[in-house]
Formats: sequence, C-alpha cells, structure tokens
Amino acid sequence: MEHFDFGSPEWEQRDRRWRATFVNSLSGFKSAALLGTRSAGGLENVSIFSQIMHLGAAPALLGIVFRPDSVERHTLSNLRNTGMATLNLIPSEHAAAAHQTSARYSEDLSEFKGAGLTPVYLNGFEAPFVQQSPVRAALSLAEEHLLSINGTILVVCKLLWAEVPAEITHADGYVDLGSAGIVTTNGLDAYHSTQLLGRYAYAKADQKPRLL
Amino acid sequence: MEHFDFGSPEWEQRDRRWRATFVNSLSGFKSAALLGTRSAGGLENVSIFSQIMHLGAAPALLGIVFRPDSVERHTLSNLRNTGMATLNLIPSEHAAAAHQTSARYSEDLSEFKGAGLTPVYLNGFEAPFVQQSPVRAALSLAEEHLLSINGTILVVCKLLWAEVPAEITHADGYVDLGSAGIVTTNGLDAYHSTQLLGRYAYAKADQKPRLL
Repeated sequence: MEHFDFGSPEWEQRDRRWRATFVNSLSGFKSAALLGTRSAGGLENVSIFSQIMHLGAAPALLGIVFRPDSVERHTLSNLRNTGMATLNLIPSEHAAAAHQTSARYSEDLSEFKGAGLTPVYLNGFEAPFVQQSPVRAALSLAEEHLLSINGTILVVCKLLWAEVPAEITHADGYVDLGSAGIVTTNGLDAYHSTQLLGRYAYAKADQKPRLL
Repeated sequence: MEHFDFGSPEWEQRDRRWRATFVNSLSGFKSAALLGTRSAGGLENVSIFSQIMHLGAAPALLGIVFRPDSVERHTLSNLRNTGMATLNLIPSEHAAAAHQTSARYSEDLSEFKGAGLTPVYLNGFEAPFVQQSPVRAALSLAEEHLLSINGTILVVCKLLWAEVPAEITHADGYVDLGSAGIVTTNGLDAYHSTQLLGRYAYAKADQKPRLL
C-alpha cells in the first residue's frame, strides 16, 4: 500500500496536474454524459461531464457539478440563460468524440462540429440532443448551490422526459446501460466498458444476499 | 425508442418502486463505496453509497448525497457527531457483502457483522475502514447543503489521506481502479466490473483525439 497525505508538504510539492489526475480518479467510477445546450443567440454547445448524481425519483432530479473556471462555462451560462439542457449518455464507439468536446473551442465554433457529433432536436425541446447517444433525457434548471469551500457549483435539474431503447428497459424499471454499450469514466480521461456481475434483491437484515 | 414523460399521468400511475428503479439507473454508472463511521458511543457502522462526486483536487474534496429518510441516517448522524468517515471502494468479490450493508439493521447491531465485513483501524484514524477494500481514504466533514427541492443533503468532505496499492497508481497520478477489480453501479442493485477502452490525451481544438 502506498500512503498519500493530502495535507503534507510532499503532497503540495507534487505537480498540480499529477494531483488533479490522482484525486479525480480516486473516488470511484462515474457517469460520462454529454450535456447539450443552446445559447440565447442560438449557438449550439455540447460538453462532456462526469460529476452527475441521482438526487431523487419523485420528482425526478439529478445534480451536475460545474467548475466555474473550466471550459464547461458555456454549458452553465446557456443553462442559466435558457433553463434547458439535454443529457446524452455515451456509447463506447463514440467515447473519443465525447472526450474531444472538452477541448477549448472558440465561442462561435460548435463543439458538435469540432468533435464530429450531430445535434438533433426531439419533441420540440429547444436544446440539442446528440444523435449518436442511445439514452437521452431533457432537463430543466431547478436550483443552484454554491459550494463556498472551493467555488464549485451544484446545479439541480429536473428530468422532464427520457428516451431509452425499449430492449434495455427491464420489466421492473431497470435501465440496463451496459447492454447499450454505455461507458463509465475513471478520472479525467479513462473510459471503460462494463460487464454485469449481478443484481441483488432488496437487502434484508434476516436474509443473505440473493441474486435477482 | 421508448418515451417516458416524468410529468404525465401515465408516469404517476406507475408503481413507486418501478419509478425509483428507472430513474436511479437512467443517469449513468456511479461509484460504489462503503462509508465507515463510528457513533459518539463507539458503535461501528458501514453502509453502501453510490452518489459520490469529485469536487476538487486542491483542496482534495468529495461530495456525498444523503437521503434523510433512508437507512443511511446512521452514517449521516455519525459523520455529524464525530466529523469523520472512511471511504472504501468495493472489489467485485465483495459486492454481495457491500450490498447487504443496505439492510435495515437495528442500531445496536453493526452492519460490519451483519454483512460479513471486517472493521480495521489505520494510522490512528477514529472511524473504521473496511479490511476487504483495497482503495481507502480518510474523510472529514467540511460543509452541508440542503437541497430544498426534495430534502436531500449534499455533504462535502475533505480528503485527509488515502491508501492505494502501489501497483495501480500510474506515473502520471492515474489510479487504475479497474485493475484493482473495483466495481461500478448502475442504479439501486446492479454491480459491474469494467474493462478499460482507453485513456485520451488532454483534448485540444486543433488536434484529433489521441490515445495515451
């Protein structure tokens, strides 16, 4: 085992990027999703995010973490100005293009074009979806929370509707993302496919774990 | 494609558990981690969490989402009372035991015992770690945010130190969780192993995506 003390002089002496890579990849696998937005002037934007949380089912809510000092600022300002965004999960064959949306494109060049992804409009919703994504949802801005400790912003969004391939939604409501080839991320730049180990029944204190 | 409208009467008529399963599994793969705590009276607790976010590297911070109405309340009250918790990532061979910690054990029975996991104390830290976990970190409570929209609580924790197998930390700081067999979750009860597709170089607008 190697020990890392985040308050030590040894830690502070490490390269800034080394520390960011380490801490980003330490806390477990994360979602990888493209958020699609449009500016008030109609410019389309798409950007990859990995800090996306489930916050509740009734009402259906999710949380997204924004670093105000990063390239993601176009997404946040569009979301604030229009109140709308789209969530698009990433299949393995488009992981490279999804990663490319994190490049610093100038404000007048769409990340869709830069990364080779295709905007598509569904059900009259005003923000663009990603055609290459098989699992998509429409979001509206609900709440913002400033985390004063480091200036990070948690944006709470309401899930308005979703489109999911019929064959990956199980009878009990489980959306089987692995069978749609959806990737997970480990840190800033690593993309993984997944293999189902098992689903377990609702745990009870007087019963052993049981596979569904 | 199947369409789900979260504001529709059809959605409202679906079973509550069906809706929870659907929305929980819709937004992508998540971390799976055991949080270890101890009450002011010395009772040990361990419980599984999947809504864990990276919030920053300098200072090293992570966020954990708590539902106040769930069994996780022992973890939250212990964290509030002692200011300390441990983060323990889950290897695939212990996914069943980790899931079992979500059962409603009475307050005087340790979930460690109920689930067959072993508490271990490291470096004088007062909260228990999970012996079966290969990637562990010590946390201290930093901030709480109440998400008024549904009563959910975001707890921001400072990462104090971490222990990671030397062989999974790459030269650039990347912690290769997949090679340590760490699982990811898709929803309430599905655990997956992972396979690295690739790591991509820092994206630049004038360059194509490039594998590291």
